[in-house]
Amino acid sequence: MTLPTFDDVIAAEARIAPHIHRTPVLTCATLDDRAGANLFFKCENFQKVGAFKARGACNAVFGLDEATARRGVATHSSGNHGAALAYAAGRRGIPAAIVMPETASAAKKAAVSGYGGRIVECAAGMAAREAALAEVVKETGAELVHPYADARVIAGQATASKELIEDVAGLDAIIAPVGGGGLLSGCCLTLSALAPSVALYGAEPEAADDAQRSLKAGRLITDDAPNTIADGLRASLKPLTWHFIQAGVTDILTVSEDEIISAMRLVWTRMTIIIESSSAVPVAAILKNRDVFAGRRVGVVLTGGNVDLDDLPWRDH
Amino acid sequence: MTLPTFDDVIAAEARIAPHIHRTPVLTCATLDDRAGANLFFKCENFQKVGAFKARGACNAVFGLDEATARRGVATHSSGNHGAALAYAAGRRGIPAAIVMPETASAAKKAAVSGYGGRIVECAAGMAAREAALAEVVKETGAELVHPYADARVIAGQATASKELIEDVAGLDAIIAPVGGGGLLSGCCLTLSALAPSVALYGAEPEAADDAQRSLKAGRLITDDAPNTIADGLRASLKPLTWHFIQAGVTDILTVSEDEIISAMRLVWTRMTIIIESSSAVPVAAILKNRDVFAGRRVGVVLTGGNVDLDDLPWRDH
Repeated sequence: MTLPTFDDVIAAEARIAPHIHRTPVLTCATLDDRAGANLFFKCENFQKVGAFKARGACNAVFGLDEATARRGVATHSSGNHGAALAYAAGRRGIPAAIVMPETASAAKKAAVSGYGGRIVECAAGMAAREAALAEVVKETGAELVHPYADARVIAGQATASKELIEDVAGLDAIIAPVGGGGLLSGCCLTLSALAPSVALYGAEPEAADDAQRSLKAGRLITDDAPNTIADGLRASLKPLTWHFIQAGVTDILTVSEDEIISAMRLVWTRMTIIIESSSAVPVAAILKNRDVFAGRRVGVVLTGGNVDLDDLPWRDH
Repeated sequence: MTLPTFDDVIAAEARIAPHIHRTPVLTCATLDDRAGANLFFKCENFQKVGAFKARGACNAVFGLDEATARRGVATHSSGNHGAALAYAAGRRGIPAAIVMPETASAAKKAAVSGYGGRIVECAAGMAAREAALAEVVKETGAELVHPYADARVIAGQATASKELIEDVAGLDAIIAPVGGGGLLSGCCLTLSALAPSVALYGAEPEAADDAQRSLKAGRLITDDAPNTIADGLRASLKPLTWHFIQAGVTDILTVSEDEIISAMRLVWTRMTIIIESSSAVPVAAILKNRDVFAGRRVGVVLTGGNVDLDDLPWRDH
């Protein structure tokens, strides 16, 4: 297990700068009122490929030596990491094979294809994904870039929280969604180096609460294919991300599916920005836990903005 | 007919500054590619009350003397101006009566109520609106703040294009939607004073093309209650706005309903921001007229972001 260090984060920042946006931090008076807190939204929904995943993917792809790069890259992804890896590979001019569950949204499949990635379909569930990916790697010799259990990816994702800390003075806390834990591990790495007094919260769906259960148990507990509307958060922690999270996270908060949808709709209507359901998870957690956040300056990572406009969650509500 | 001057714009800017946002200017590589131009989006969808209308309404309300203000303000509006006037009145602590057509969206009615405005319903169509408003003014003695045929409102709206010119160097053109023409008149005022070499385009739905027909005919032509999905653009020019537009506008471009919906969806998915249908009209006009805009630096006013998430235009497409 290769652990990324803060030096890797600094190197990642320089490496990916030509390929990503330094995204803005937005505020919203209505959300502040509802939360009783000062919220600073790091808008990774405005990031290249519409998600923070562009950071880790670009760091992995542009860090490869020439001979390795030429064989291409491969990964499995429920969506954004696949699009991000296809994007990064396209910028470098190398092939990318993306293993996607059949259940991935049409919009996310179209994004991968649009960036020139080759989609390899598999059954839902982490076991099926990993088997299909192993097959692809064996066939092509491609470099595996895991969506989160990869030191290069975590170092890349860490640049999001680094920018947030640099752009907002005096933060008391940061909250980010947790699926596989790549982003949250990156936050751990950044905060431990730059701002160890800032509290760090993970937010996840009740329906995919492996991180909360792991933190409570003090040992890594994983689920296979939990079901939640927050489709970016269906992955489970791995030893590498658990390593960071068990040491660096203040608490993990969970929210219901209805709370996710309601928070998503609130952000859409009051901030007039589009966030995907996974990004609504930390917003919902803040609104649900006034006792934790009231009166504090809180950085919130809005992780992505890729949605299927023909399949919005409130259509059935 | 009182004509606003550029001095009124300067005064408006100082008067409204505590009550509005200086909105950001965003860019988008995908939109630039599609247009073959460099587009600079002035994001009034992030403005207070979700629309540029907050500017004109605040300028009118905060410019009133104390005795007049105490009697309150009144207007008619298909939506955003009503919400904006209610917002401005609420900030000053005076009553606002808003005449709204029965056909106004539930979301826009809720916004007016949410800011503390009193809604007076009337039949659709400008004649019915104006009759209902005259009645309200007669009853209450309220100060009429017309949504666009009002020098104070035009001076307020002009601050949007002033900020755009200040924030983006070397613009070749600005394009804004035209309904009643308040925003576009404000652009005329700003450009004639600050940047007379910048071309100015209005964009309107084919289904509500009174501005284009007026410009072609060289005289003011008005429609009563045209029908278009761009519900903010159903109003017709008035002599005050025609005065500015006939002198200061380079051309008026029209787009179909399908082109509006398609452009709106493109902005939602590729910029991950929410714009209302009226804001999509200039975007559609740019995509439709590559010959006009290709290779140029174009400022685009995204006028608002108030949509009814339960009634999105592509649901029926």
